[in-house]
Amino acid sequence: MTTTASPEAKLIADLDARRPTALARAISIVENQRPGFDTILGALHSKIGRARRIGITGPPGAGKSTVTTHLAAQYREAGLTVGIIAVDPTSPFTGGALLGDRIRMESVALDPGVYIRSLATRGSLGGLSSATRAVADVLDAFGFDRILMETVGVGQSELEIARAADTTVVILVPESGDSIQTLKAGLMEIADIFVVNKADRPGADRVRTDIELMLGLRAGEALRNVPAHHGVDFKKIMNPARIAREAAAGAQTESWTPPVLRAVAAKGEGIGELITALDRHLRYLEGSGELRRRRRQRLREQVIDVTEHRIRQRLWRDAETNAFLDSKLTAMESGAATPFTVADELLSRSVDLLTRTRS
Amino acid sequence: MTTTASPEAKLIADLDARRPTALARAISIVENQRPGFDTILGALHSKIGRARRIGITGPPGAGKSTVTTHLAAQYREAGLTVGIIAVDPTSPFTGGALLGDRIRMESVALDPGVYIRSLATRGSLGGLSSATRAVADVLDAFGFDRILMETVGVGQSELEIARAADTTVVILVPESGDSIQTLKAGLMEIADIFVVNKADRPGADRVRTDIELMLGLRAGEALRNVPAHHGVDFKKIMNPARIAREAAAGAQTESWTPPVLRAVAAKGEGIGELITALDRHLRYLEGSGELRRRRRQRLREQVIDVTEHRIRQRLWRDAETNAFLDSKLTAMESGAATPFTVADELLSRSVDLLTRTRS
Repeated sequence: MTTTASPEAKLIADLDARRPTALARAISIVENQRPGFDTILGALHSKIGRARRIGITGPPGAGKSTVTTHLAAQYREAGLTVGIIAVDPTSPFTGGALLGDRIRMESVALDPGVYIRSLATRGSLGGLSSATRAVADVLDAFGFDRILMETVGVGQSELEIARAADTTVVILVPESGDSIQTLKAGLMEIADIFVVNKADRPGADRVRTDIELMLGLRAGEALRNVPAHHGVDFKKIMNPARIAREAAAGAQTESWTPPVLRAVAAKGEGIGELITALDRHLRYLEGSGELRRRRRQRLREQVIDVTEHRIRQRLWRDAETNAFLDSKLTAMESGAATPFTVADELLSRSVDLLTRTRS
Repeated sequence: MTTTASPEAKLIADLDARRPTALARAISIVENQRPGFDTILGALHSKIGRARRIGITGPPGAGKSTVTTHLAAQYREAGLTVGIIAVDPTSPFTGGALLGDRIRMESVALDPGVYIRSLATRGSLGGLSSATRAVADVLDAFGFDRILMETVGVGQSELEIARAADTTVVILVPESGDSIQTLKAGLMEIADIFVVNKADRPGADRVRTDIELMLGLRAGEALRNVPAHHGVDFKKIMNPARIAREAAAGAQTESWTPPVLRAVAAKGEGIGELITALDRHLRYLEGSGELRRRRRQRLREQVIDVTEHRIRQRLWRDAETNAFLDSKLTAMESGAATPFTVADELLSRSVDLLTRTRS
């Protein structure tokens, strides 16, 4: 929107000229919602939508970075450029755990057609999903063909990645077998494709079977072994008529049952099949209207994020608001006021602050 | 504030009468910010401030639940009532991990002077810190003497627990030794007391020494081995003059250096020392004015949370706002509008919505 020679305008021009240094700077600004981030994302907005956004998640040690690295390498062989966003749900206790993963990615990191960026949860002010989406928008507008967004599934990071992705790949390992029955329904809701990695280890077939049972792909078998999961209607997904109908429909694009693939990513095995499944999922997304629905949902969430960010900026950086809040602390301590009465007072005196147009 | 015979008024009267069923219901309502939560918390507001709130965090497997259980048991022996809030940063991959911990707590769970409540991250709308604080407020107003808030340090849960606590205990184990040098500065900022648990295992002394080095308790030793940490001024905390001054001051209450305790919680060893350290920290908090500062900070954060909650409720549950947002999706898809221009429009047409007083 800005057409003067502002720093943002210069940066946007440099992005148009595809300068790598501009890319790094733009990402830093939008990731941390630094001043000008809205101008940059606003200017890039009309250029997004080309890239495919693929979320990759799973438990610690499942081989997510190995899969990501091999996926990137195969996309590069096919002539596609790849942006990788490694989302690190930082913990002070396991902070070093992902360092090895980053180093493992070095094989692709030297390729100028690959751009790797780490996002630390702790630094992202607007939430992980919002920061990931913003960084992906910059990479998309810059022209990357595939954006791989990888995160370990702790806290809520796997949900946040799924919200920012067109397609979500959930990677499990044979060791997940013992806990597969306790996998939360949330996982079934986010997974478009399952990969059982390290499939040369004992237990891989059992994990596949367990997932397929939960998905209702093996309706006749051991139904009683499938636990009830909050939020998942097993009676519905176990409906044999529906399963037969979908199997008969074959290449139809109106519904999607997540495939359960096997891989030994360390040896590069199963990556080709994953790419095929990703392409098939894209056709489903496009044919069914689901891609548009997911992208509209992201736009909706972005408006909500931006609106709330604007409100927070206006309210909590305002000196008068803060002075008012400070003046009420003693009354709240004594019980003469409560945080609820103070919030109401604060809102009613903030009309101008909340609703003025941008300065 | 409400004095009519509303469901909230009934519930508040039942809380005053110390009915356990009322406690469970009130907690469910405030945890999930269900209708009436503000009336309940507002009515309880003048009754909070008696309980001591103790946060307990550390890596997976450090023995947090064991320490919590033994702390609770010793407080009970001293005639104090104890509320336990077990905050579970839910992961679909490790969802079952904390189940065992809950079962281990059964020894204290049968005691009517102990109330145990699990909080799942995924369910807390207003953020973990906000939900924990609200549940602690209810327990505090209900009359519990000690509130133990326990969480595994993944994602940002350990920071959120610290924000809700008067005193934060960080539990490490000898196995933490390898990674202690990579502990993020954040940990040093939140820990009021360190406990090296499972201290009968090899490596316990090294972990203690490492923590003490980072804290500057051993200023003369191996300074060069201490890594630079973002956000921590090691030159300042390593200042030998300051350390000598503080050591000489002894029982003074004006500054606090986190003690590093050892424990074998499974055998009950070290729990008495932890309680002594907690009491000493309380005297420091009271004597230095730090307790009041922390509690004022919590009130401040609560006003901010409540205000933002009110704004979100008004904006995103409003049919007209949603219709307006929907009407802009196509323009955003085509690039004719951006989420930023739509957010600005949305704010300027929402004056009444945002600033009306409570209905």
